[in-house]
Amino acid sequence: MTTSCQSSTHTQLASQLKQAKQAFYQMAKLTTCQKNDALALMAQLIDQNKHRWLEANLTDLQTNQTGIDASLLQRLKLDEGKIVQLVQGIEQVISLEDPCGKLLGKTELDAGLVLEKKSVPLGLIGIIFEARPDVMPQILSLILKSGNAVVFKGGTETKQSNQAFMDYVVKPLTQACDYLPQSWATLLESREEVQAMLQYHQYVDLVIPRGSNQLVQHIMANTRIPVLGHADGVCHLYVHPSASMAEAVNIAIDSKIQYPAACNALETLLVDKAIAPAFFSAFAPVAKAEGITLKACPHAMAYLPEAAPATEADWTTEYGDLTLAVKIVDSLEDAVNHINTFGSHHTDGILCNDAFVQALFLAMVDSASVFANCSTRFADGFRFGLGAEIGISTARTHARGPVGLEGLVSYKYQLVGNGQVVKDYVGTSPKSHFTHKIMV
Amino acid sequence: MTTSCQSSTHTQLASQLKQAKQAFYQMAKLTTCQKNDALALMAQLIDQNKHRWLEANLTDLQTNQTGIDASLLQRLKLDEGKIVQLVQGIEQVISLEDPCGKLLGKTELDAGLVLEKKSVPLGLIGIIFEARPDVMPQILSLILKSGNAVVFKGGTETKQSNQAFMDYVVKPLTQACDYLPQSWATLLESREEVQAMLQYHQYVDLVIPRGSNQLVQHIMANTRIPVLGHADGVCHLYVHPSASMAEAVNIAIDSKIQYPAACNALETLLVDKAIAPAFFSAFAPVAKAEGITLKACPHAMAYLPEAAPATEADWTTEYGDLTLAVKIVDSLEDAVNHINTFGSHHTDGILCNDAFVQALFLAMVDSASVFANCSTRFADGFRFGLGAEIGISTARTHARGPVGLEGLVSYKYQLVGNGQVVKDYVGTSPKSHFTHKIMV
Repeated sequence: MTTSCQSSTHTQLASQLKQAKQAFYQMAKLTTCQKNDALALMAQLIDQNKHRWLEANLTDLQTNQTGIDASLLQRLKLDEGKIVQLVQGIEQVISLEDPCGKLLGKTELDAGLVLEKKSVPLGLIGIIFEARPDVMPQILSLILKSGNAVVFKGGTETKQSNQAFMDYVVKPLTQACDYLPQSWATLLESREEVQAMLQYHQYVDLVIPRGSNQLVQHIMANTRIPVLGHADGVCHLYVHPSASMAEAVNIAIDSKIQYPAACNALETLLVDKAIAPAFFSAFAPVAKAEGITLKACPHAMAYLPEAAPATEADWTTEYGDLTLAVKIVDSLEDAVNHINTFGSHHTDGILCNDAFVQALFLAMVDSASVFANCSTRFADGFRFGLGAEIGISTARTHARGPVGLEGLVSYKYQLVGNGQVVKDYVGTSPKSHFTHKIMV
Repeated sequence: MTTSCQSSTHTQLASQLKQAKQAFYQMAKLTTCQKNDALALMAQLIDQNKHRWLEANLTDLQTNQTGIDASLLQRLKLDEGKIVQLVQGIEQVISLEDPCGKLLGKTELDAGLVLEKKSVPLGLIGIIFEARPDVMPQILSLILKSGNAVVFKGGTETKQSNQAFMDYVVKPLTQACDYLPQSWATLLESREEVQAMLQYHQYVDLVIPRGSNQLVQHIMANTRIPVLGHADGVCHLYVHPSASMAEAVNIAIDSKIQYPAACNALETLLVDKAIAPAFFSAFAPVAKAEGITLKACPHAMAYLPEAAPATEADWTTEYGDLTLAVKIVDSLEDAVNHINTFGSHHTDGILCNDAFVQALFLAMVDSASVFANCSTRFADGFRFGLGAEIGISTARTHARGPVGLEGLVSYKYQLVGNGQVVKDYVGTSPKSHFTHKIMV
């Protein structure tokens, strides 16, 4: 790519982003009714045009049938069943409370001078996702309900599907709802545009990458825009001596095998030395039957003769398959230290029957989701009851864990007075005094 | 500086930051009582050791008395009065509610499977500030109350004062309170260390720069760590035709002159064309009497013969002195567009007596603080009733506007079950169903 070509990408993109940011200011004015009406029409348009969308998806599948694996092909593929679920998902988003305009606080600073803190849409959101074409209606429904604007780019594998969704759903929707600004949803076409978009922090307020670890790492390293997402999901369970054995085995197996490719699947099992012999004799045969490959610390090798020895690198590896690292720890504190040191602050749990130990674990583990006596696989926006999910965040600021509509809003302070000036409130004997009376 | 020297800075710093991050995990466990006890002792130590602190400050003043201007020297200087205020500030922080451990939400996902969303300390905070030595106790009291750990660096102008505060307040405090980890507050010594610190996103969770526009811009451009702060404060007032004239003049003057160097001082005054002749004839003589220099748009020049012509650059300039840009706008929408386009999203207000217009302005202006009929100078953590202020943020994510204790916390999800696994909740005829019953 030549420099002149790059700068033409930049010029065109800058103008698109400027328009998209203007569209955000229009979106922020929409009423809940208008947003819900548009969502209902979106659901209707998806249903009416599903055959065109499926046809475009078929072209994508044919183009990509060689050179990619079966599981990716599965994610690429749309079918009537998935589309029914997507429409149901949009109906769920309609039923969720509007996240904007909530009164988060109210303080009377002085008579007639009242401060309100109100939730507002966040801004122009940049979303980069891979493979799955069904991500598009999920994203667009959340963006619309939260009153934001979006620029986004799907994977090249789903180019036809995404373009069809724009042509047969987003464009007619925008035309039919005259209150929707033209540029509320902008589909970028090339990787160069994404790369350039990451530089426009004056327009784009938040970037959400949904895809491989590499994609997320690349984006985090190449932008000053806040990024909402997660690169790794190295999740742990710690089996405390007070754990009930059958329950612990069942939860550990579910956490590992229920969907091993998910970011909330178990990667490292920490077993307290006091329970290790009993636990491993119950766990090892089930793990073997389920096809789990174990990688064990030297101490655990004594109980798991069929395991391979784990190296230091295993403690930070997200396998994403049926491999499981196993380590014997000396104590609760040892387990917590291991998790905080080697984990990805995503989802970590304890299996125990001791209220004090459980409370300590929940308090001391520094992760977005900390669990007791249930599967790590519950860490998910839908399962948490947040409605749809825009992503899962391992960042510490703004939004953490599974992120629904709440992660797409910010707030502003509104102060209404009747002529107050600051000079009356300062100095050694001020004319006026703050009351700071908290009202909400 | 040679490469080997740089890497020795890095090695030593990495180990300091690692210790500081460990200290954070200890801080996060402190009870409200422990934190308040430590704060009370901090106030006592400041009072007991004020003469040593004042002495060190005198050395700083003597070192810096040439080459810096009077206003900076004023900010450098500590005195007994300032110290009394600082002690009172700490007492106020003691009286504020603990921001950690709040129950932000509670949902029963199913019988015996309960999700709680709880506020938690944020992490290791990096703070870089210039000049004012009185920032140190303010920062440390907020950090302590919110259960975080801090690495910080003050300006070289206040080196002796800051070191004295560490030696006579922070060190004895940490020794006396055995529950405080050694490395909860780490003072960095050199600019090289700050530069290096910005690269350690695995340890530092948030950076707060407090100082010049250049300092903030430099930090924002040189780190992947989230930054809380503001580079610019280009604040506006819009005078609507319905405004009461005397009140409008009074508020505009206060917003400009009450403390012109502050980031919430008025920089651009937008006057509706329908009220321009009347407003300017009332405003111009007062502005002149107060020593305000006006820079006016061509249209406004007709009413302000003594003004200099404004250029495009004036609309984005933070003067920080008694200069004021003035522009005539056609309408509310024109004013809002000007503010959203040229402003810094800090603090912007309307002067009007029309409830509908006021509501539109408050909704449409995309700033952290939007005001009606009061001075922009009210945008301040203390005046908002937040207690002390760690900074003012013009970012859109996490914390916005004046930031008190709430901007120093995050949240985590805690899910407690009694053996639930995900496989029972999925498939065509699942054994279990989510109830998603919202309890808080």
